[in-house]
Amino acid sequence: MPRVLVALPLLLLSASTLFATPRILRPEPTPIPLPRTTVTQDGEFLIDAGFRVAVQAPSDSRIWAGTNRFLQRLRNRTGLFLPQGRVASTDTLTAPGLQIQVEQTSALTVGVDESYALTVTPTGITLSAPTDLGALHGLETLLQLLKPASHWNPEVLAFAIRAATINDAPRFPWRGLMIDSARHFLPIEVIKRNLDGMAAVKLNVLHWHLTEDQGFRVESKVFPRLHEMGSDGDFYTQEQIRDIIAYADARGIRVYPEFDIPGHATAWLVGHPELASVPRDYAIERKWGIFDPAMDPTKETTYEFLEKFLTEMAGLFPDPYLHIGGDEVNGKDWNAAPHIKAYMEENGITDLHALQTRFNQRLLPIFAKLNKRMIGWDETFQPGMPTNIVIHSWRGREAMEDAARQGYQSILSNGYYIDLMQPASFHYLNDPLPADTTLTAEEAARVLGGEATMWSEHVTPETVDSRIWPRLAAIAERLWSPVDVRDVESMYERLDTIAVQLEEHGLTHIKNRRMLARRLTRGLDPEPLMLLADLVEPLKIYQRNADDSYTQFSPYTLLPDLAIADAPGARAFKRLVQLYHNNPANDSLQKALIDVLTQWRDNHAKFGALAFEAPALMEAYGLSYALKDLAILGLAALNHEPSPLPQDKVLALAREPVAKVELQVVDAVESLLPRQ
Amino acid sequence: MPRVLVALPLLLLSASTLFATPRILRPEPTPIPLPRTTVTQDGEFLIDAGFRVAVQAPSDSRIWAGTNRFLQRLRNRTGLFLPQGRVASTDTLTAPGLQIQVEQTSALTVGVDESYALTVTPTGITLSAPTDLGALHGLETLLQLLKPASHWNPEVLAFAIRAATINDAPRFPWRGLMIDSARHFLPIEVIKRNLDGMAAVKLNVLHWHLTEDQGFRVESKVFPRLHEMGSDGDFYTQEQIRDIIAYADARGIRVYPEFDIPGHATAWLVGHPELASVPRDYAIERKWGIFDPAMDPTKETTYEFLEKFLTEMAGLFPDPYLHIGGDEVNGKDWNAAPHIKAYMEENGITDLHALQTRFNQRLLPIFAKLNKRMIGWDETFQPGMPTNIVIHSWRGREAMEDAARQGYQSILSNGYYIDLMQPASFHYLNDPLPADTTLTAEEAARVLGGEATMWSEHVTPETVDSRIWPRLAAIAERLWSPVDVRDVESMYERLDTIAVQLEEHGLTHIKNRRMLARRLTRGLDPEPLMLLADLVEPLKIYQRNADDSYTQFSPYTLLPDLAIADAPGARAFKRLVQLYHNNPANDSLQKALIDVLTQWRDNHAKFGALAFEAPALMEAYGLSYALKDLAILGLAALNHEPSPLPQDKVLALAREPVAKVELQVVDAVESLLPRQ
Repeated sequence: MPRVLVALPLLLLSASTLFATPRILRPEPTPIPLPRTTVTQDGEFLIDAGFRVAVQAPSDSRIWAGTNRFLQRLRNRTGLFLPQGRVASTDTLTAPGLQIQVEQTSALTVGVDESYALTVTPTGITLSAPTDLGALHGLETLLQLLKPASHWNPEVLAFAIRAATINDAPRFPWRGLMIDSARHFLPIEVIKRNLDGMAAVKLNVLHWHLTEDQGFRVESKVFPRLHEMGSDGDFYTQEQIRDIIAYADARGIRVYPEFDIPGHATAWLVGHPELASVPRDYAIERKWGIFDPAMDPTKETTYEFLEKFLTEMAGLFPDPYLHIGGDEVNGKDWNAAPHIKAYMEENGITDLHALQTRFNQRLLPIFAKLNKRMIGWDETFQPGMPTNIVIHSWRGREAMEDAARQGYQSILSNGYYIDLMQPASFHYLNDPLPADTTLTAEEAARVLGGEATMWSEHVTPETVDSRIWPRLAAIAERLWSPVDVRDVESMYERLDTIAVQLEEHGLTHIKNRRMLARRLTRGLDPEPLMLLADLVEPLKIYQRNADDSYTQFSPYTLLPDLAIADAPGARAFKRLVQLYHNNPANDSLQKALIDVLTQWRDNHAKFGALAFEAPALMEAYGLSYALKDLAILGLAALNHEPSPLPQDKVLALAREPVAKVELQVVDAVESLLPRQ
Repeated sequence: MPRVLVALPLLLLSASTLFATPRILRPEPTPIPLPRTTVTQDGEFLIDAGFRVAVQAPSDSRIWAGTNRFLQRLRNRTGLFLPQGRVASTDTLTAPGLQIQVEQTSALTVGVDESYALTVTPTGITLSAPTDLGALHGLETLLQLLKPASHWNPEVLAFAIRAATINDAPRFPWRGLMIDSARHFLPIEVIKRNLDGMAAVKLNVLHWHLTEDQGFRVESKVFPRLHEMGSDGDFYTQEQIRDIIAYADARGIRVYPEFDIPGHATAWLVGHPELASVPRDYAIERKWGIFDPAMDPTKETTYEFLEKFLTEMAGLFPDPYLHIGGDEVNGKDWNAAPHIKAYMEENGITDLHALQTRFNQRLLPIFAKLNKRMIGWDETFQPGMPTNIVIHSWRGREAMEDAARQGYQSILSNGYYIDLMQPASFHYLNDPLPADTTLTAEEAARVLGGEATMWSEHVTPETVDSRIWPRLAAIAERLWSPVDVRDVESMYERLDTIAVQLEEHGLTHIKNRRMLARRLTRGLDPEPLMLLADLVEPLKIYQRNADDSYTQFSPYTLLPDLAIADAPGARAFKRLVQLYHNNPANDSLQKALIDVLTQWRDNHAKFGALAFEAPALMEAYGLSYALKDLAILGLAALNHEPSPLPQDKVLALAREPVAKVELQVVDAVESLLPRQ
């Protein structure tokens, strides 16, 4: 690049300013999940345009394609024109920069060896693993350790990895994400980019929620009316399912399906009303909630149908586990059906739980014949069920522990409901097996791990990534790293770093927020909206469901949809306020606070003007107004002036939810105000 | 929304400031392509939460699904919770806001009626069209006419469409985009979102370039080694091809394939070397350019193979047209093969063009049998070819006109090569049939239209959208709107508007630029990089190919890849400078210029610091430095100070290409400087 040479003297002139750059901006890169043991040494291995990789592995190993993906991501991230196109067993390299050694190609089953060892020295990197699954994890760790070379020469583009010895292995064998493709359909590419994201943070199982009241999303050749009449045409073909399973397998991720029965099953009944407990003109459910329709547990034909269907699906999904849901059967239709009441009396079934258990028991021989293991939500954990089923706990850790005590393997999802928009720290500190667990070692061994759940009532393909990422990485660390890794601040720092790296997979968690803002503001400068959006969070838990005007067709393109959990602007402001309280005499901190609050105050006029051109913003006008008043209060306090506004009123107003979001800076501003 | 009510008085208080918002920011929305005739009236039709659509159309019409897509886009853009889920023929609506009337479901063939009529009055909208294809175009026009309601009430969310009568129909029947999926593979979702974008600007044909030296991208069940050995596993399955064809058909877009033969065919020869003119150990080509491998035109087996393959593909692609490429056969392998030289002598074939024509002639009976019409690039236009083939002109309009004079139907792509990164205005003013054409009416009628070409040497799935959009909309207007629609400034204004609307389809032309910037800057603030990126354009035409280090594996993630044609920052600056020259006494314009130039000057230190943390930026350091010096010169001139730097040297340096990009503001800055 001749021009770089021209620029060189100029560069050296300004090198002093360059070296003045606070390195603190970039701490030593530290992976998430944190490896089990890391011993750092002096020096680093330089990665420049001469970098090459040599692989020793079985010819059928996942590592070959995995290394090619690694090389392309390395090129794309660094700008290095690495000459090595695709790795091959025929490569004969002397002193490759990275030497990968894989002993065996692993089956993709629960509890297989996922460990790896990395040795980085100034002369080279060695990645060795008993299985290719472990080696894939090692490559992700390497990509997270990448940094600019320290001995820095503007003429030679070079990155580096700090010298270290890393030995790593997961704490739990079951580290998953559940994706609900039923309530809002999520096209294949959404699933693929999230599988890539999962692999980047060492998750190893996708639980695919494929049927619901609101949609039946898998092609059935045996009962085509299921997807033809239950999906509006939004379903996965069997070729697409096989494609996803292969895509996930190549990344060391298991895929198992959930067919939620006997409740949450309206979409089944559109094409097959004969399965229903109550005759009704069934249509795809468009609203959110718990609904009455349930399969008829008293008819032989129900089980004959399910056996045929599950046999077809067992052939499509090779994983040994299959999830039957079983959650939230409200029993209304069972109570409303005289023949079901009669059946219960005849068979001495006294309550609906027992009836549902009878239903589940009837499925057990089918599962045995198909050589599948049954997983069900908490409701499946009932007297009379054998201990070879797996209990999936959404209600609480106690339920999971009870199951473990009674001999059931179990998975925890309670505390990992990322659709509820809680902070990453909440999920991060939620441990399936806390250090003080009362379970015996034998019982604890039955706790397989956990799964984050991405229920899709309030997300679309445009917003789902911003609900999953980067918070899922915090859960991934909880399930991978040692129990004593619990530094929340460090977790958030690493979350910010991985968030940008995750974009390499096409994930839209960052870029779609401004895209939605541009749409709402019709091409005008969206910054006044983004300033507000970065200070608010969507209503948490189930508050958003209180508005029953939401349906499958609603516009999920508004302020609560471009707002995210852990509001970035609020996080930064709270950090600044904390610093200020710790150093009240520091003028620059005070000035920084005044700058931020002035920006908030002056944003309101801009937001109002924007809302005039973009009516959909008007519902948030009061929020912008409340933020302005908050800023006025804060500025007065920082300038030691009397409060120009009624403090209590302003704070109370600022705490009110508006347009399905809540301001996250009220307490921090209040802490700046004089005690009343 | 109680909070809005609370906010209301405040709102009215500040309404004055709101009304002060310069409406000039938002001119009356005007569609691109511009309709044939628009007669506007007073008043507007209000679109609020009560808006409903009624459809009268054949049950098999594309308009049913098209209207559902329209409704969802309307909801997502406006935030209106429209109660109507999906339209159905059973809907009984009194006074629907939009009444759609479609006479017939159209076959998807060249020259069908695509016209529509829109009547917008304050009481309702009527969209009527002879075919559902026309009606789909009408819905796109409606979405482009949407604006905030004028009689504006903060309590009621409402948009509007200005009262008008629009009669519209296309100028050319063939309005296309060619996508090269071969050199860089482009996954299915890339094709789908671009089909949606095409439909939004009323394009009606996708020309799918599926085979090249660098890849064979379609599954062949007859000759599986073609895709198995020629694609690195990156190919479209036949189910995916059928899916794309159906997806396009639903949007009124034809899809026809190109299988480039006998040259550009290296990837075929990896699995089938017997087709080659010269025995060689064939491998997928990784570099860019024109290569020697070509099929052997002298072997019977070549034609037997092609007949079997084309028969399979003819069954896969229903469109009556099929493209054989035929471009850039350099003939070296033909000259190098003694048996081919001998064949030429025996058959009195004196030159390579004649040999290629002989090859093409041998394909004609196959096409006849398959009932397909042959399309070929200019090279196919040779003596001895029948006039029932279509000539696709990449060399120039003259060649196309010659073909038309000699009775051939033809398509123009010369001047529409959007991969060459030229300004939209260049493509926009390139007319297949300029007002002063010398073609007779009969000859002119043979000019079917044009196709933009997206060759994919220097693009990836991450960047291809930013090469296609929004410039493709300018070409779409050229091919749809009347010949005298040529206002470049108006075109650019409408391009800026449609650019944001196109994001509704998942197109990444805007959002991926900052995404790439975040990756390069490793999560640091990318704005110093974006400021520079918005002032430069990638090297144009084929300058980038001069660097032969580029391969299929190169990092297309650097400054030239996040830079775009029609650099937005440069466009804005040039406009400002023009205004200033027109009003030299205007202080606010001078101040605005000084602010911009000061920003440029001060950006350099920030860019340098960023490059220190993100080494891949260092290649652009000299560019940032040159911009700083330009700014210093401009500031001195505006402040009537003597030039602090050697003007000629600074300008010359600023005009040098750096890091595959060129600054676009040098002339504008020079125009501010004192004459030397």
